[in-house]
Amino acid sequence: MVRPAGLRVIQHPIAKATFRDPRIEMAHGAGGKASRRLIEELIAPLLMGESAEPLGDAALVDVGGVRIAVTSDSFVVTPLRFPGGSIGELAVHGTVNDLAVAGARPVGLLVTFVLEAGLSSDVLEAEVRAMGDAARRAGVWILGGDTKVVEHGKADLMYVTTTGFGELLPGVSLSASSVRPGDRVLVSGPIGDHGITILLARGDLDLEADLASDTRSVVPLVAALVDAAGPGVRWMRDPTRGGVATSLNELARDCGFGIVLAEDRLPVRDGVRGACELLGLDPLHIANEGQFLAIVAPELAAVALAALTAAPGGHLAGDIGEIRESPIATVIAETNYGGSRVVDMLVGDALPRIC
Amino acid sequence: MVRPAGLRVIQHPIAKATFRDPRIEMAHGAGGKASRRLIEELIAPLLMGESAEPLGDAALVDVGGVRIAVTSDSFVVTPLRFPGGSIGELAVHGTVNDLAVAGARPVGLLVTFVLEAGLSSDVLEAEVRAMGDAARRAGVWILGGDTKVVEHGKADLMYVTTTGFGELLPGVSLSASSVRPGDRVLVSGPIGDHGITILLARGDLDLEADLASDTRSVVPLVAALVDAAGPGVRWMRDPTRGGVATSLNELARDCGFGIVLAEDRLPVRDGVRGACELLGLDPLHIANEGQFLAIVAPELAAVALAALTAAPGGHLAGDIGEIRESPIATVIAETNYGGSRVVDMLVGDALPRIC
Repeated sequence: MVRPAGLRVIQHPIAKATFRDPRIEMAHGAGGKASRRLIEELIAPLLMGESAEPLGDAALVDVGGVRIAVTSDSFVVTPLRFPGGSIGELAVHGTVNDLAVAGARPVGLLVTFVLEAGLSSDVLEAEVRAMGDAARRAGVWILGGDTKVVEHGKADLMYVTTTGFGELLPGVSLSASSVRPGDRVLVSGPIGDHGITILLARGDLDLEADLASDTRSVVPLVAALVDAAGPGVRWMRDPTRGGVATSLNELARDCGFGIVLAEDRLPVRDGVRGACELLGLDPLHIANEGQFLAIVAPELAAVALAALTAAPGGHLAGDIGEIRESPIATVIAETNYGGSRVVDMLVGDALPRIC
Repeated sequence: MVRPAGLRVIQHPIAKATFRDPRIEMAHGAGGKASRRLIEELIAPLLMGESAEPLGDAALVDVGGVRIAVTSDSFVVTPLRFPGGSIGELAVHGTVNDLAVAGARPVGLLVTFVLEAGLSSDVLEAEVRAMGDAARRAGVWILGGDTKVVEHGKADLMYVTTTGFGELLPGVSLSASSVRPGDRVLVSGPIGDHGITILLARGDLDLEADLASDTRSVVPLVAALVDAAGPGVRWMRDPTRGGVATSLNELARDCGFGIVLAEDRLPVRDGVRGACELLGLDPLHIANEGQFLAIVAPELAAVALAALTAAPGGHLAGDIGEIRESPIATVIAETNYGGSRVVDMLVGDALPRIC
């Protein structure tokens, strides 16, 4: 949820909750439409009052005259460890990435744990070590935190909450309202690796693929992009829960324009494509943990893409579409053969506890 | 965990974990000795490297040249609602209070939820509303957050993590190393109300008492104290898990001096005293959620106490002891009759999931 710095929210009257689902279900945590309703119809109005605004990756706030970016996420991924990473790395990268795509340089993290009694100390040590290592690699301090323990059977091994704060980069101004028709849609690399990896790691499906989670810090890639095309970067987002489709639908709704994706230019690995076909899933709905989307002004798009592809880990970045006047507030995907389809937000909970 | 602003922790080599307990147990989350070992022997060295320092209520960090205080806590209290409050209020007050006793003016909060599938939306709404109301009363913004859902049976209704950040108050410099023999120990009000209230609210004991949790923001009381005696305030802490005894033992260890409490001047309500006697507990080990301890220079102690007792909600504040050269790094309680006893940190988990 993004709030303009300096707004005196405390004065705002509390808004009514209009959420009518009687019980919380898995879909409310899956990052798609149900999650959005829970936030917009219950949590945001009661916590933040009538001025509650669309969800972003980080909030901006003035402290002592300096504008800082802050973000907080809980991680409940299962299994704890999976090809390419673990909950500890995810908890650091996810938070660092939220700051990066908000146009901030990550400075510090706070970490809290909810541990299930009976958890092996070795399992905990491995995750704490993974967090420390990931933070050092990302160049960010871990400053403190908290640890709580609940009875055996009242958690699933461990849950982690990570809060990050950072300093806004000069010369970067990101907002859905600055997006214009003609702007290009860039993605930093192949989509869907994380979600499909988690799904296969659970072992419930009789499927195997040579895949690993993409969990990583995108700070260096964002820095390369901003260095090359800073004033032309209009908006960024890391498409985690709900995938690229959900992030772009949120953008389409917020900016009011159409977003047209070139289906054949979407970078999708064979393993992800194959698993999605078998399971009836759309790679655009699958979570990513080491990629980001950027909307870039047309005159700087080529420079931006060149900078991304030249940066370490960015060689599979691509230009996957553009902003158009119409269809209003809608995302569509076009094929080479002239076909097109509407790309909706994630509905339901195809992939619960993915992060 | 407090870290001096500006320290380049990222350069510090990772320290070894020396924690040898094979499994995590409830005591590791109870705020006493076992918690301290888990933090000091595993979490802090691996997350923060060799420079890991004693635990405080908030960390200090430079962002863009401004020094801000940050703190994060997870709340797993059971039951969710209890006389005097609920998890939502606790999650706001606990975080706001951590900032206040770090000498900071709370500015903003981030809130994340881990919800158990099947949770009644009414229960969630009540807690979200309690958080919004508590934040407004405390004069602090809620800026954003995150919501995750886990399967039924993988959490206990809901867990809440709250992160707060604030601006350091000018003219306040708090540290255990500035504490001197002769300094007075002040407490803002009666101790043990929260912990005993939760214990009785669980209904496992055949006990009743006319008690309510003390959960509240201590921001106005801290402000009154600092206004009256700012330069004389050496150290503050809110004695939550582990109680007054644990907070003062941490101070004694950090400053190296003795802390001598006057047993008969400890403010303890009859209901708390009675329940503790029946259960073999010490009120000094019981959690508080709306009180704080302050160490104040002797020449300003009377002024400080007068300011506290004159402030709304502070009429039961008291001067409960003093700092002495000896016994070194030890807390003792003296009675009117000349007896004395060593007051140790909380050992074990007399009161799990108290906050």
